[in-house]
Amino acid sequence: MIQQLIQKIQKTKAPVCIGLDPMLSYIPEHILKASFREFGENLAGAADAIWNYNREIVDHTWDLVPCVKPQIAMYEQFGIEGLKIYEKTVRYCQEKGLLVIGDAKRGDIGSTSAAYATAHLGKVKVGDSVCTAFGTDFLTVNPYLGTDGVKPFVDVCKEQDKGIFVLVKTSNPSSGEFQDRLVEGKPLYEHVADKVVEWGRDCMDGAYSNVGAVVGATYPEMSAVLRKQMPNTYFLVPGYGAQGATALDLKPCFNEDGFGAIVNSSRGIIAAYKQEKYAKFGPEHFAEASRQAVIDMAADISSVL
Amino acid sequence: MIQQLIQKIQKTKAPVCIGLDPMLSYIPEHILKASFREFGENLAGAADAIWNYNREIVDHTWDLVPCVKPQIAMYEQFGIEGLKIYEKTVRYCQEKGLLVIGDAKRGDIGSTSAAYATAHLGKVKVGDSVCTAFGTDFLTVNPYLGTDGVKPFVDVCKEQDKGIFVLVKTSNPSSGEFQDRLVEGKPLYEHVADKVVEWGRDCMDGAYSNVGAVVGATYPEMSAVLRKQMPNTYFLVPGYGAQGATALDLKPCFNEDGFGAIVNSSRGIIAAYKQEKYAKFGPEHFAEASRQAVIDMAADISSVL
Repeated sequence: MIQQLIQKIQKTKAPVCIGLDPMLSYIPEHILKASFREFGENLAGAADAIWNYNREIVDHTWDLVPCVKPQIAMYEQFGIEGLKIYEKTVRYCQEKGLLVIGDAKRGDIGSTSAAYATAHLGKVKVGDSVCTAFGTDFLTVNPYLGTDGVKPFVDVCKEQDKGIFVLVKTSNPSSGEFQDRLVEGKPLYEHVADKVVEWGRDCMDGAYSNVGAVVGATYPEMSAVLRKQMPNTYFLVPGYGAQGATALDLKPCFNEDGFGAIVNSSRGIIAAYKQEKYAKFGPEHFAEASRQAVIDMAADISSVL
Repeated sequence: MIQQLIQKIQKTKAPVCIGLDPMLSYIPEHILKASFREFGENLAGAADAIWNYNREIVDHTWDLVPCVKPQIAMYEQFGIEGLKIYEKTVRYCQEKGLLVIGDAKRGDIGSTSAAYATAHLGKVKVGDSVCTAFGTDFLTVNPYLGTDGVKPFVDVCKEQDKGIFVLVKTSNPSSGEFQDRLVEGKPLYEHVADKVVEWGRDCMDGAYSNVGAVVGATYPEMSAVLRKQMPNTYFLVPGYGAQGATALDLKPCFNEDGFGAIVNSSRGIIAAYKQEKYAKFGPEHFAEASRQAVIDMAADISSVL
C-alpha cells in the first residue's frame, strides 16, 4: 500500500494530504442554510452540510494530491448521521483515485484491536459472506497498549495490503508530557519508534514499510532524530500551517531522496477561504480557495526539498 | 456522575459491569439464523443478531448490576449498521436504568478530543438546536497525547456531569511494554496516574472524582500501589474472568470501605453459556446463563471484600 502512496506522490509531485476535518464553523453559510432547510437544524442537517462541503473540496482538489485524511471524530460528533458521511466521503475519495487515511487513532487490547482493524482496514465474515465496513487504505493507531494492541493492525496490513501510521511523536503542545519522558536515557517516543520499526519489518512494500509513524512537524529537532532512527518508515506529518509548523520545519521529516513523509493540512486547506490570503475567493468559491491553498502548500514544501 | 454509579453499586450490592462486547461467534445459532433469514448474511444481518443477543442479555441482567460497558469496536466492525446497534444498545440500557460506559478509548489533539467528547458524552450545537450523538454516561480515554488531549473530556465531565476512565495500567499481556517503563525511578503508568489525579481534582462528585482510571485486574501488585496513590479515583477494572484475574486479584483495586472499583466482565458473562459450568442452560437459554454468571461473579467479589 505504501508504494501506491509513493507512486501517487511522484505523480502529483505533492507530498500533501488534505485533512478532511470539517467543523460546522468552517462551512459557508449558503451550504449550511440549504442543508438546514432540507433536513432541519439537527444531526442529519449537519451531516448533509458536511457532505456538500467535503464533496466540493474534493471535486476541486482531487487531481492535485495523493491522499486525504478524514478525522473520524469530526463525523462521530454527529452520531450515526455523521458517520454515514464519513463512510460516503471515504468512498467518494477512493472513486476519485485518492488514497484515504482514516484518522481514528484506535488501539486497545488484542481482540478489540482486531475488531478495529477489521472495521477500518479489513473485512468481516458474516455467515458465508465477507463484508467491508469502512474500508480505508490507511489508519492511524495509538501504541499505548503495546505490541499485542498493535499487532492485529499489522496483521491486516500484511493480509490485505493496507497501511497504518502509529503515533510516535504527536504535534500537540502537551505531547511531551508522556512521550518525551526519558526511559533509559532516551525519550519514550524513541522507544515507541523502535517498536514501530520492529512491527514494520516484515511488512515491507518496496523501500518502505506499510507500518508508518505519526511524527508532528511542530518538533523538527525530534523529527530529525526519528528520521535517522527509522529510515524505512513513512511519516505522516501533522502540524503544518494552522498548528504552526513551516516548510523548513518539515524538511527533517523527509529522507534525502525527497520521500519518506506525507504532510497533512486540515484547516489551512479546507477553511482556506477564511484566511486573509484567500479572502478574495469569498465563501461562495471556498473550494477554489482550497485548491489554491493546496497549490501553495505543495510549492512551499518543494522549495525546501 | 460517579455518585450515581456508587448509589447503583450500593443498591445492587454488585460492583459489576457487564461488558457488552458481542462477537458473532458468541451468538447462538438460532439468533444468527433468524437475523440472516430476515436481513441476509451481511452487515445488517450481523447487526440485527447482535441487537437481539444484547437485548436478551440486558433483559435478564439489568436488575442485578449498576452498569454496562459496550466496547464500540465490536460494533464498529460492522460499519454503520453495527454502530446503529451500539446507539440502540446504549439507549436501551439507559431506559432500563443502567449507566453506560462507552468503551471507546478515544484521545487525540485538543480540538479532536473535543469532538470525541461531544460525540460520546456531550451535546453538539447545530444551528440553534442542541443535539446529542451517542450520549453515554462514561467514556474510556487514552492519555498518550497528554493534558491537552484529555482536557476536553474533563471539561465535558464538569459541564454535563459525566465521567471518564483514563487508561493508566491496562490488562493486556504487553501493557508493560511502554506503561511499565521507568521514568525518574517510577513506572510511566504512575506518572499517568499522577496526571489523572490532577485532572480529576476539580471534578469531584462526593468522595470520588468523575475522572476515573482504567486499572487492569491482571496486575494486582500494581493495582495496590495505584489504589494508594489515587484514593479518590474510581477504578474501572478489566481482566477478571476470561482474561485470567481472580477475585483475590481484584481486592487491591478496592478501598477499605468496599468502594473505589467497578469490575468488568465481558465474555465471562455474555458468553457464559459456552462455559462448562453453565452448559446446562444451553444456547436457547443463553441469557439465563448470563444472569447466573453475574450472580456468581458478584458473590465471588463479595467473598473477598
